[in-house]
Amino acid sequence: MSGYFSEARSAETVIDRIGAGADPRLRRIMTSLITHLHGFIKDVALTEKEWEQAIGFLTETGRMCSGTRQEFILLSDVLGASMLVDAINHRWPAPATESTVFGPFHVDGAPVRQMGESISLDGKGEPCLFRGRVLDTDGNPVAGASVDVWSDNADGFYDVQQPDIQPPFNNRGVFVTGEDGRYAFRGVKPVSYPIPSDGPVGRMLAALGRHPWRPAHMHFLIGAPGFERLITHIFVAGDSYLDSDAVFGVKDRLIVDFKPADNPTDGWLAEYDFVLVRRTQ
Amino acid sequence: MSGYFSEARSAETVIDRIGAGADPRLRRIMTSLITHLHGFIKDVALTEKEWEQAIGFLTETGRMCSGTRQEFILLSDVLGASMLVDAINHRWPAPATESTVFGPFHVDGAPVRQMGESISLDGKGEPCLFRGRVLDTDGNPVAGASVDVWSDNADGFYDVQQPDIQPPFNNRGVFVTGEDGRYAFRGVKPVSYPIPSDGPVGRMLAALGRHPWRPAHMHFLIGAPGFERLITHIFVAGDSYLDSDAVFGVKDRLIVDFKPADNPTDGWLAEYDFVLVRRTQ
Ligand SMILES: [Fe+2]
Ligand SMILES: [Fe+2]
Repeated sequence: MSGYFSEARSAETVIDRIGAGADPRLRRIMTSLITHLHGFIKDVALTEKEWEQAIGFLTETGRMCSGTRQEFILLSDVLGASMLVDAINHRWPAPATESTVFGPFHVDGAPVRQMGESISLDGKGEPCLFRGRVLDTDGNPVAGASVDVWSDNADGFYDVQQPDIQPPFNNRGVFVTGEDGRYAFRGVKPVSYPIPSDGPVGRMLAALGRHPWRPAHMHFLIGAPGFERLITHIFVAGDSYLDSDAVFGVKDRLIVDFKPADNPTDGWLAEYDFVLVRRTQ
Repeated sequence: MSGYFSEARSAETVIDRIGAGADPRLRRIMTSLITHLHGFIKDVALTEKEWEQAIGFLTETGRMCSGTRQEFILLSDVLGASMLVDAINHRWPAPATESTVFGPFHVDGAPVRQMGESISLDGKGEPCLFRGRVLDTDGNPVAGASVDVWSDNADGFYDVQQPDIQPPFNNRGVFVTGEDGRYAFRGVKPVSYPIPSDGPVGRMLAALGRHPWRPAHMHFLIGAPGFERLITHIFVAGDSYLDSDAVFGVKDRLIVDFKPADNPTDGWLAEYDFVLVRRTQ
């Protein structure tokens, strides 16, 4: 029997080519990838025209990528791959706060602000006070935690999506907790927004009968010495897209009731305590 | 139980989002794709860093694509996906000639030449006479078959890879069979060549301990009214890369002994009969 390509042994033939000196982890990953790729093609008996469409889709997805647009991450997001990687790598038991998808709109270097300061620089939208504590899994406050937050504005756009309209670092800021572990800042109540849908991923969603919307949320990236970094959102309870987030980011325990604040000038109040997991190594 | 994302039901959650109105074939394909994608990520417990590397690899592959370079097809080729799609879509029983991978170097519109004419316009390389018949599966000659052929030159490059050095349509031509089904043309004995390896796919091959070489071959695209189009190669027997073609294109019955021609000025002789399958619908 020849070692030439055959439909029956297609994946094995490709896997057998991996050299003895290849990195063992790369070998493991590529073996599984090749097995699943060939399994998929056989499973659906992919036609040549469909293969050409797939090549065209990937090529267009590549063409859409730029300094401000990452269409492959968007593709990973809408296929649930981003959330799955997140889940596998953060299997933290309760009471730890659950992580969720990072998303493409974080910006490094947002200004460190005073507790209670506002992150809304354009003053647009319904005012909202965000506050709560950063705790360890025993309920003790975590001091020196950096709480990096970002959200869209009242029109559903992040500052980086509208560099000509929004001031830089609009609706972004970093807050550092003191001994009490408390954080507080003012901003606007987030609104639901569609992920960029003018590219191949948007067309794929449309062909699948899916909408591109995400339910309203505030992003949090929380780091503290000795603790695992937490990347998560809080979602606005009652949002109509909670059950159909285009990127599958919603988790039960991340949904928060936004209530009228005691002081009417504060507008809304969103209270949430984050629980960090101690780093084990 | 909520319909929110969970590691356990990750693929099902994504698949459940496909709308009722989606095209049934698209639903079938995406259901299998999502299942295999999630299966792969779980199988290897992909880390966040590995996911970032995968996104970076796809982005770079996209950036490498241009009017004259298709890095995604190259990726499909070296993973055996192109050959698998070819195999699934051309399950022709013997005595039909086996098909193989199309490759990225075909050019539409090559000149139709007289039988026996040479396709080597730069005169470089060892002369070779190619001849044989186009037959149906009963052994009858097929008249009016167009035999479109292309190969690299003696330096291992196709004309389109060296537009400044090689004349246009160097080592390309179309020959149309008469009543006897015979074809004949002169060219050069093909040489083995590496697929383009200066991009992400080349780096992937290197990391896997694989070389980028293809064994020497002449490409054939044969069409005739009432018959299935045949895309194949003939390979030069004895080539050192027959057992390790970078794109898995070799098949036993496509390997041909290149012999000294009777007439020494002809150089080599490659004789091969192609057997076409009658179109059933
Ligand atoms: Fe967001
Ligand atoms: Fe070739």
